[in-house]
Amino acid sequence: MAVSNAKWARTKKLITSLRLKKYRKLEQCFVVEGAKSVLELLDSDFEISMILGTPAFLDENKLSRDVETLKVSQRELESIGEFKTNDTVMAVARMKANTPFTISDNEFVIMLDDVRDPGNLGTIIRTADWFGINKIIASEETADMYNSKVITSTMGSFVRVQLFYTNLVDYLGENSHRVFGTYLDGNDVHGQQFGVSGLILIGNESRGISKELEPFVTDKITIPRYGSAESLNAAIATAVICDNLRRH
Amino acid sequence: MAVSNAKWARTKKLITSLRLKKYRKLEQCFVVEGAKSVLELLDSDFEISMILGTPAFLDENKLSRDVETLKVSQRELESIGEFKTNDTVMAVARMKANTPFTISDNEFVIMLDDVRDPGNLGTIIRTADWFGINKIIASEETADMYNSKVITSTMGSFVRVQLFYTNLVDYLGENSHRVFGTYLDGNDVHGQQFGVSGLILIGNESRGISKELEPFVTDKITIPRYGSAESLNAAIATAVICDNLRRH
Repeated sequence: MAVSNAKWARTKKLITSLRLKKYRKLEQCFVVEGAKSVLELLDSDFEISMILGTPAFLDENKLSRDVETLKVSQRELESIGEFKTNDTVMAVARMKANTPFTISDNEFVIMLDDVRDPGNLGTIIRTADWFGINKIIASEETADMYNSKVITSTMGSFVRVQLFYTNLVDYLGENSHRVFGTYLDGNDVHGQQFGVSGLILIGNESRGISKELEPFVTDKITIPRYGSAESLNAAIATAVICDNLRRH
Repeated sequence: MAVSNAKWARTKKLITSLRLKKYRKLEQCFVVEGAKSVLELLDSDFEISMILGTPAFLDENKLSRDVETLKVSQRELESIGEFKTNDTVMAVARMKANTPFTISDNEFVIMLDDVRDPGNLGTIIRTADWFGINKIIASEETADMYNSKVITSTMGSFVRVQLFYTNLVDYLGENSHRVFGTYLDGNDVHGQQFGVSGLILIGNESRGISKELEPFVTDKITIPRYGSAESLNAAIATAVICDNLRRH
């Protein structure tokens, strides 16, 4: 489909507006950039409003769905994309409703207490997906999962990991699962018995786990330190804990 | 010291020019932003050319060295800083020469094959410091450690971890230590015997370890996957391997 100037102008305006949470909320849409992520999106249950692809991409990849598709040049894509790697395809998809999920008695779920950096959130989603964790409960101050930096950092894992944003104090007040919290003075994670289910609570990048969540933590754990750094990055801590919990 | 307009204009020009590698190379200087990083810098053996601090910062922190200090307002700092968190202090320091180091028979060293993302490199430096690894050998295509995004992501650990940039094929041709390479089909890292020394080789974000380095890898290792993500972020993989090698 050839794109008229008016259509292109509208599309460009829509896509650049979706960089802001305010417009994502208004339109209930978000942008997915890059071939790997868009191919994962096409295979997922996300509703897709539009695909913008280069002729080369659209020739090579038969789209698995009937969706409005715009043929655009690489230069056009680059002019509206946020990332250098986005030079073949981009999609606009519908956000999912923020719906609570049940936690079964044999699964681990990650809980994020104000993880504000989009890159950290995206990396945590990707890491969770690697370690077979597909649910994340996030505080309302955690970065927005539909932020394009988050989506891009997940490397496609956003289609497999559900997020539910909520007030963590209220949530934990009703929770009956074990809560493993990462502290600097907890039990050595190498000797920790994790059992078969629970919440892995990861604190904010600067202040760690909030004071008001501490009473809900049933198991304080620590990744042993052998050097001098004061702390670990939030996504790094998540990964090391997931690896420890899976090896048991 | 009050800052004249001419002095401020020169300083501003210098600091913003140092965002580019070309100017860092020319001036042999780099910028450190934020209180935690600057305090670590003051305690390190880096040569410091200049400190720019708010009156509040300079009152609270007696500087441990005699260095040219400019009193600036928070607004002035924000106008030249790259990061939101930089609102109290900034420093200009001298780069160290790119000098090879010897590897002892009881230490692990990280080797980076074209890790291009500055955030990943910074996080790897911070993670290495946590796990007691203070030497990193990097390919020439690896991100520049003096990039401000790298420095900021290290959270001060850049003062404790030495980097040496070199051609990895030439380096590995002369190397006598074990080389642990991360592959998708190596031995389970949970059962890996690491011994007491060796190089931990981490591949590029997109293509993994280069073909021409593969012959030098003595031990292929893999972080077991329990879910569906195709790969792990480079810094995440580094951390999980470091945690596994330290527990043995």
